[in-house]
Parts: sequence; structure tokens; C-alpha cells
Amino acid sequence: MIVEYDGAAFSGWQVQPNAPTVQGSLEEGLATMLRRHVPIQGAGRTDAGVHALGQAASFETVTELSTDRLRKGLCSLCGPHISVVSLETAEDGFNARFDARGKHYRYRLVTRPSPSPLLRDQSWHIHAPLDLDAMAEAAKMLVGRHDFAGFRASDDGRDNTMRHLWRIQPAVSPLSLGVIDIDVEGDAFLKNMVRIIAGTLVDVGRGRIDLVGVERALRTKDRQSAGITAPARGLTLVEVFYGSAGAAAPIS
Amino acid sequence: MIVEYDGAAFSGWQVQPNAPTVQGSLEEGLATMLRRHVPIQGAGRTDAGVHALGQAASFETVTELSTDRLRKGLCSLCGPHISVVSLETAEDGFNARFDARGKHYRYRLVTRPSPSPLLRDQSWHIHAPLDLDAMAEAAKMLVGRHDFAGFRASDDGRDNTMRHLWRIQPAVSPLSLGVIDIDVEGDAFLKNMVRIIAGTLVDVGRGRIDLVGVERALRTKDRQSAGITAPARGLTLVEVFYGSAGAAAPIS
Repeated sequence: MIVEYDGAAFSGWQVQPNAPTVQGSLEEGLATMLRRHVPIQGAGRTDAGVHALGQAASFETVTELSTDRLRKGLCSLCGPHISVVSLETAEDGFNARFDARGKHYRYRLVTRPSPSPLLRDQSWHIHAPLDLDAMAEAAKMLVGRHDFAGFRASDDGRDNTMRHLWRIQPAVSPLSLGVIDIDVEGDAFLKNMVRIIAGTLVDVGRGRIDLVGVERALRTKDRQSAGITAPARGLTLVEVFYGSAGAAAPIS
Repeated sequence: MIVEYDGAAFSGWQVQPNAPTVQGSLEEGLATMLRRHVPIQGAGRTDAGVHALGQAASFETVTELSTDRLRKGLCSLCGPHISVVSLETAEDGFNARFDARGKHYRYRLVTRPSPSPLLRDQSWHIHAPLDLDAMAEAAKMLVGRHDFAGFRASDDGRDNTMRHLWRIQPAVSPLSLGVIDIDVEGDAFLKNMVRIIAGTLVDVGRGRIDLVGVERALRTKDRQSAGITAPARGLTLVEVFYGSAGAAAPIS
């Protein structure tokens, strides 16, 4: 299934005790319909406050209910902050998390003196103007296969920190005055990686980090050399890629 | 000044007793800074729930405060649902309401089986697919100078109901799956006119009204012949046009 959600309402994707989560809400809704607990696998474990237009998730069950009935049921059982945009039967053994071949995230900035009430919960407000050309130059340096150990949360314990980014594109959005979207696509992401990339590009855009600094952060793998972690509310998981047709870039 | 606001938080633009309004919030903020009440004129008196990206408003005062100070002050005094995007000194005698030469509204639809949590308060969810070509045909019939007496709220008491619409354009938006934006530009609008136009186009798109019906609504000036009044939350005042340079269309 493809799931859209308003991350402001949740403590992230992944189930945790005593906190509203997207996975938890979906599993509860599913349990109500199937009369048993069925675990749901999400492609990306988005942080608290992070949104999704196209999160992908899968579960395994035997049921008489049609896919349309399940979609409608989850939409109404999970409340207004979660929507199952589509739901269909997958091939045997499909797993939304392990079969994902890449993801597209979008980080949204509002760059102007006054904030945007209409994008309040879905953007990061930067008061000063940003040097978009410098941001694009820095973005180019991060595209490709690199060790992104300097661009992850300190509690990310993964051993393999090599990741392949196909596209990092900061561009003016026609959505509203001063909106800049940073589109990031890659094969996989470390914890907070897109938010640290966005924060680094913003720091480049406002002159706090130069291109040499970005190169240093990549080379030294030192978290302190990269920029700040941009707030969760600006980030949206746009799409998850599967198979060979779904991706916009070469298989890495 | 240009004002953006989230209409979900207000009982409309115009001041009324015991209800939060955009005009009321701005006038209160202004009174705090200027230490006296100064009335504010808005170009469009948007209904409860209607949003604005570019509402225009004006007021007359003598003050030592800089325009930047006034802008910042209003932003912080009016809370997170209102933002003064820009504020500058106008020519003597300028009045945002009476000098407006036209307006651009956008009506946003989400047309797909499942709702959109991220656009929840800023769109109208239509479960069924719409015939966009038929909607575009109907829109063409409404463009131009017409008597729109059939396309206004029953309590709109204005004598002159002739209005000139320059553009009505329903088009697929790249924003998200199934989003259709109906952009409407014209010299002036009757009460609920854009919402009734949007409701009529949706009724055409789902086959409840045909082109003959739209022609009849225009000709007979009968409110019952037009479509339903689309919900306020889908509507946004995008821009107000002034002078000769500001408008996208010929002076009527």
C-alpha cells in the first residue's frame, strides 16, 4: 500500500509504547478488520514530525476482504491524519522495506522575512535569503556514491555508511513566495541523513559553510563539519522505488 | 500590505463581534503598536475558512515606526495563522479595497478515492474521478463579461451583478496525486461566486450538470440551476491586482 500522512500528528512511523505512530495506527486498524494482529513493514522509518506523500508498506495476510475494502477501512479507522492512497496484492514474498530500491525525499524551505501560515507545519522558515547557486554547487558534491558517516545522527549505529545519491536538487517552487524545495533521491539513507543534508545546504546558502567545508565533512566523516539537522516538519517522503521501472536513476 | 493566512483559524476576513477574524486580529495588532485603533481595508472579504496567499490590505496612519518594524510586529502579534508577507508605504489616498482592479482565486480539489491528510484543510475531497475536459468546456462558457446573478449566495444583495472573468482554468496540479486546481481571475466577485463556480464545474465533471445546464444557469440567473457551493476550505485568494502592470488580463 501507498500511505500519505501528516507527520505533525505522530511520533514517527515506527511503533513505540504510549505514543501515536503511523505504523501503530495502521496495525490497529488492520487488527480491527482482520481480527488478529498483523505486522506492517514500512519502507522508510520516518522520524517524528516527518510527513509522507508516498510511504510504501506491506503486510501478509489471508482474508476474504477485497483490497478496496481494506483501503477504505484503513482510511476510516486510522483517522484524518493517515490515508491509504492505494492498496493492492503484491507478488508472493514482497516486502516493502527490504525490496525498496530507492527513495525520493523532499525538504521544503520558506525563505523570506515573514513566515508562511499555510505551510507552517510542512516547511522550515529561514528568514534570510539563500544563495541558491552555492547550494546547487554543494549539492553536486554530495551526489554519487559516498561514505555519508558525517551526515547521520550520532545514535545511528549502522556499520555500512556508503550510500548512493542519484539527485540532490534545490530549486525554487512555484507553490508560494520564497519556497525552495530540495529534492533528494538515493538508494538508501542513514538516520537523519536528508535533514542533515538539508541543514548543510541551508548553511551553505547563508554563508556559514563553504564548499571546502562540505568536502571536509564528506572526507573526514565528522558530523561536526556538516551543517545542522534541519527540523523534521520540512521533510516529506515523496516516493519509494521498486523493481527496475520505478527508479529515476541507474541501479547502483 | 500583502497578507497570507490560514482561513481554518478564522470566521472570515471581516470584523465581527465574539469571533476570531483576520481583519480583527490585524487591527488589534496594529492598535498595540500604534496605541490607537486604525481601521484596515482588505481587498477581498473572504468567507470563514477561506485562505489567502496574497490578500491585500491598507490602512492610513502617521507613525515613527518603520514599515519593516510594522511588518515584524504584526507577524508576531497576530499569531501563527496570519503573516504579513510585505508592507510598504502606498501613494496618498490608496485604498486596497476600492483600488483593486481584479483578483486571482484558486480552488483546490483532491480527486481520488482516498483523502489527502496533507491537504486536508486546504482542499475539497471528491471521491470520484472528474471529466476534466468537460470542466474546461464549461469554464470557457463562464469566461467573459456576464451577469452572474445565478452564481451568488442568496443573501448577496448587490444591484449590479455583471462581472468580467478573464480566466477560469481547471488543471491537474503537480502537487500531489489527483490534485486539480481551478484558477479563476476576474475584475470583481459576488458573494460565494468562486465557490459556486467551483461547485458547478465539479458537478459538470461528475456528470450531474451538462453544458446546457451551465448555459441555463447563466441565462436564467437562477441559483438553483447552478451547481452546489463548494466548501470554503478549498478556496484561496492568491493575488489582488492593482494599476495596469499588475493584471494578467485586459482592463474591462
